[in-house]
Amino acid sequence: MTYCVGLYLDEGLVLLSDTRTNAGVDNISIFSKMQVDEVPGQRVFAMLSSGNLAISQAVWNRLSEGVMLDGFRQTLRDVPTMFRAAQLVGAAVREVYQTDGQAMAAQGVGFDVALLLGGQIAGAAHRLFLIYAAGNFIEATQDTPFLQIGEHKYGKPILDRVVEFGTPLMDGIKLVLVSMDSTLRSNLTVGLPVDLLVVRRDALAAGLRRRITEEDEYFRGVRDGWSGALRDAYRAMPAPDWVIS
Amino acid sequence: MTYCVGLYLDEGLVLLSDTRTNAGVDNISIFSKMQVDEVPGQRVFAMLSSGNLAISQAVWNRLSEGVMLDGFRQTLRDVPTMFRAAQLVGAAVREVYQTDGQAMAAQGVGFDVALLLGGQIAGAAHRLFLIYAAGNFIEATQDTPFLQIGEHKYGKPILDRVVEFGTPLMDGIKLVLVSMDSTLRSNLTVGLPVDLLVVRRDALAAGLRRRITEEDEYFRGVRDGWSGALRDAYRAMPAPDWVIS
Repeated sequence: MTYCVGLYLDEGLVLLSDTRTNAGVDNISIFSKMQVDEVPGQRVFAMLSSGNLAISQAVWNRLSEGVMLDGFRQTLRDVPTMFRAAQLVGAAVREVYQTDGQAMAAQGVGFDVALLLGGQIAGAAHRLFLIYAAGNFIEATQDTPFLQIGEHKYGKPILDRVVEFGTPLMDGIKLVLVSMDSTLRSNLTVGLPVDLLVVRRDALAAGLRRRITEEDEYFRGVRDGWSGALRDAYRAMPAPDWVIS
Repeated sequence: MTYCVGLYLDEGLVLLSDTRTNAGVDNISIFSKMQVDEVPGQRVFAMLSSGNLAISQAVWNRLSEGVMLDGFRQTLRDVPTMFRAAQLVGAAVREVYQTDGQAMAAQGVGFDVALLLGGQIAGAAHRLFLIYAAGNFIEATQDTPFLQIGEHKYGKPILDRVVEFGTPLMDGIKLVLVSMDSTLRSNLTVGLPVDLLVVRRDALAAGLRRRITEEDEYFRGVRDGWSGALRDAYRAMPAPDWVIS
């Protein structure tokens, strides 16, 4: 399993992915699920993946070599807009399905993949997309300024309650770490280390890339501190005046 | 879908269930998923259900009329221990499977049910069980003093982080309401009103039964207050000293 989350904020994008890949519970590996491509000052992209690792790696390889879109072969460095970038990723997913889908189905393996694509191209706004296994996609908006893929339920309540388009980037970092920690605690198939990427609006480059391990002092503070903060918060809530006989 | 949660605390049991039953998204009804039976001063039981409503209603009806266990027909008023009570509920589930399982399978309907059984019988401790569709069961312990059925993921992080066996009943009420609210916000098939039951240890009766509706003033305070408390909590957390370029 996997948990990846992306925040689409006024100040930029905050992206976080876990690294656990498993085939059964006794075959666990670490693979980054975050791919980044940037031409500083011109364009920056990050792709986060969940689902079948063979599919998501094939998608990224095809994107690097070029995928047919609008009649010619393009990479993320060629597309004129973020919308075309999302289309290109979708086209890459469809190419992989054309190539591998039938053989996978013959082995009883579903075509399971979901991708987050965030980024910005000079002259236009930063955007964040979720691309499905069918190659179609949705986009984060100011109404719902976050997208998740993989094991999303444990980490969703904190985002539902507090993330807004106006949330500052630094607060966004705290929130995706809390969201990830909630997931790590509840699902063994989501695991450390995690990869963090922050892309400031109009910076047109990765502003912060960090692999966060078990030893990361700040993340350890978040893990311990958040449980304490929740405990304080519920204790501070008034009790009901209901009588228990 | 459904969300039911039970806390097994030193001071007693706190049980909460939603009431939404749906067959598709355009056929939604309110059914209580909490059944209570008590002989004040002697024994008290509550059964919370998720899954197929026809199954859980049949289970409760059979329990009322008597289910074969250890060679004779018994109800929850006859069993000598909470362990036997859980066995009896499991036996009722198996009877329903014997009666209806094949016909349901013929219609492509899975035998989907999960039940929480909490209670106490005079002279022994209060206990909380989760009974599966196969009629077997597990029990909450001091290590993991809560059990959930139905759509459990959204409401689990808060419980994972703060519920302990020593949590007071009043705090337990706050926590199950926060856990339920997290679920209500994220899954449309879990809906208000919710049914709350508190059974104080050794009281051998329902200590508090309350149907909580949209209009319940305390629950509204929890809903609004918790989001505010989380916002304050994450803002109060120190920011990392990482630099975003």
